[in-house]
Amino acid sequence: MDNAVEINKYSYMDKYQKKVNFLTPEDNIPKLVSKVRVFNEENKVKYINLIDEKILTIYLNSQEVLTALTVCDYPEYLAVGFMYNQNIISSKAEIKEVEFNQELSAVVVRTSKETLFEAQNVKRIKTSGCAMGTVFGDMFNKIKPIPKQNFKKYAINDIRNLVKEIIGLPSLYMEAGAIHGSVLCERDQILVYMEDVGRHNAIDKISGWIVLEEIDPTDKILYTTGRLTSEMVLKAISMGVPILVSRSGFTKSAVHLARKFNLSMIGRFKGKRFLCVSGFERILL
Amino acid sequence: MDNAVEINKYSYMDKYQKKVNFLTPEDNIPKLVSKVRVFNEENKVKYINLIDEKILTIYLNSQEVLTALTVCDYPEYLAVGFMYNQNIISSKAEIKEVEFNQELSAVVVRTSKETLFEAQNVKRIKTSGCAMGTVFGDMFNKIKPIPKQNFKKYAINDIRNLVKEIIGLPSLYMEAGAIHGSVLCERDQILVYMEDVGRHNAIDKISGWIVLEEIDPTDKILYTTGRLTSEMVLKAISMGVPILVSRSGFTKSAVHLARKFNLSMIGRFKGKRFLCVSGFERILL
Repeated sequence: MDNAVEINKYSYMDKYQKKVNFLTPEDNIPKLVSKVRVFNEENKVKYINLIDEKILTIYLNSQEVLTALTVCDYPEYLAVGFMYNQNIISSKAEIKEVEFNQELSAVVVRTSKETLFEAQNVKRIKTSGCAMGTVFGDMFNKIKPIPKQNFKKYAINDIRNLVKEIIGLPSLYMEAGAIHGSVLCERDQILVYMEDVGRHNAIDKISGWIVLEEIDPTDKILYTTGRLTSEMVLKAISMGVPILVSRSGFTKSAVHLARKFNLSMIGRFKGKRFLCVSGFERILL
Repeated sequence: MDNAVEINKYSYMDKYQKKVNFLTPEDNIPKLVSKVRVFNEENKVKYINLIDEKILTIYLNSQEVLTALTVCDYPEYLAVGFMYNQNIISSKAEIKEVEFNQELSAVVVRTSKETLFEAQNVKRIKTSGCAMGTVFGDMFNKIKPIPKQNFKKYAINDIRNLVKEIIGLPSLYMEAGAIHGSVLCERDQILVYMEDVGRHNAIDKISGWIVLEEIDPTDKILYTTGRLTSEMVLKAISMGVPILVSRSGFTKSAVHLARKFNLSMIGRFKGKRFLCVSGFERILL
């Protein structure tokens, strides 16, 4: 088995005919949004744009790992990113191929060797444990503090301009609402803008893009429209992105985790205002 | 085994020393909210209120069912409501006892007989299936259309007043933000107002309250601050509540499910404005 050749199958940026390093929801809007007939408060018919959710089953080899509700625009990135963030796979090198079957609405991540997740799952089953709980344990085992050294600071004005640019981009949110977005940026450049019905899916798709396109996360910044809960913070740390920004607020657990693992976290970012809870040393006022 | 006596253990309204039929987050605020030190855009120290998330493991007898991130104010309602909405248990009569262990942060729902979920899970394990996927299947098997007949209509003005009253109530959201709320009402009365870090937890806690306090859901109305996705709509239908109202928007899948199962669904409810996507016949303009 020549992994190097097989790995080429994941040039999804080719598949989606996108320029590497700039992927936004724009081209998917016509595919994912459709009109629905509703009544308003005056009993008048209106047609509004809504997005569709699809049920996607994610497999690791022959093992079912998750059933996700997703807009299903990038199932391969979602599957790989979810597994990477849950510490089920740890690098692109482990992956033999990723196959999306639209008819079955299933995506299969195939590895060259059996993973620890599959081996442990057999054991878990015997002790009548459940994947969900153990997966949390696995996540905590994986994540390491983000290094503090050798980081070129981000100017707060650049972050402000990025947020402004993101808000102005055509998006599923602008077209249909009821969706969350996550955006990966480098300095003053937007690299990938993912949206999905759940905050976690949007961030997992970015993680999958980082893994499959072999992007260095250590100088990047991640923006999300969603609330900064412990789940979101763990994902950002797991991905190795040092700065996490949100227009929404945070929980105390999220703040605790960000501080513990040296993540720079800024929330309630609106216009000129924001609140920074950790890692202020990576930001230049 | 005298079930009638055992069942008395679930008078959680007694445990929490609440008046039956009015449960709001107010009394829990001092317990669940605490101050955290942050910096604002002027590099000035500020102290903000944040809520804490706890990891709660939910067991059905000896089987681990879910690890939830929750504010953990009503773990018994959350566990029972989650299981009811996922069709793991179908009535209070099946439940022998519900035990919350604070030290282990675990809640155990014990049944008199082994449930179908436990029996099937053994089978699932053998076929290397996963709980998540199958649980979706189980949910779809359970839900039935909400009856259209014999329903005393809700006046839209009463709904408006309810929403206004809900927004004005002391809540974790008002204190700390980053949290979702779900409220069960009957005519012009608020019955239960639950909040949690996830929309699904807040609605599951209401479901648990309905099951354990043996409340008739068929004349009630459910308000949520969160987006109306298919997951939320399935939960409302599973609970048998005929009207679902949200200040947020909806997905197309949610609209499709609401129509298919005769749920009255109103979204983007803000001030005088709203959009009704289904079941307008239960509303009086």
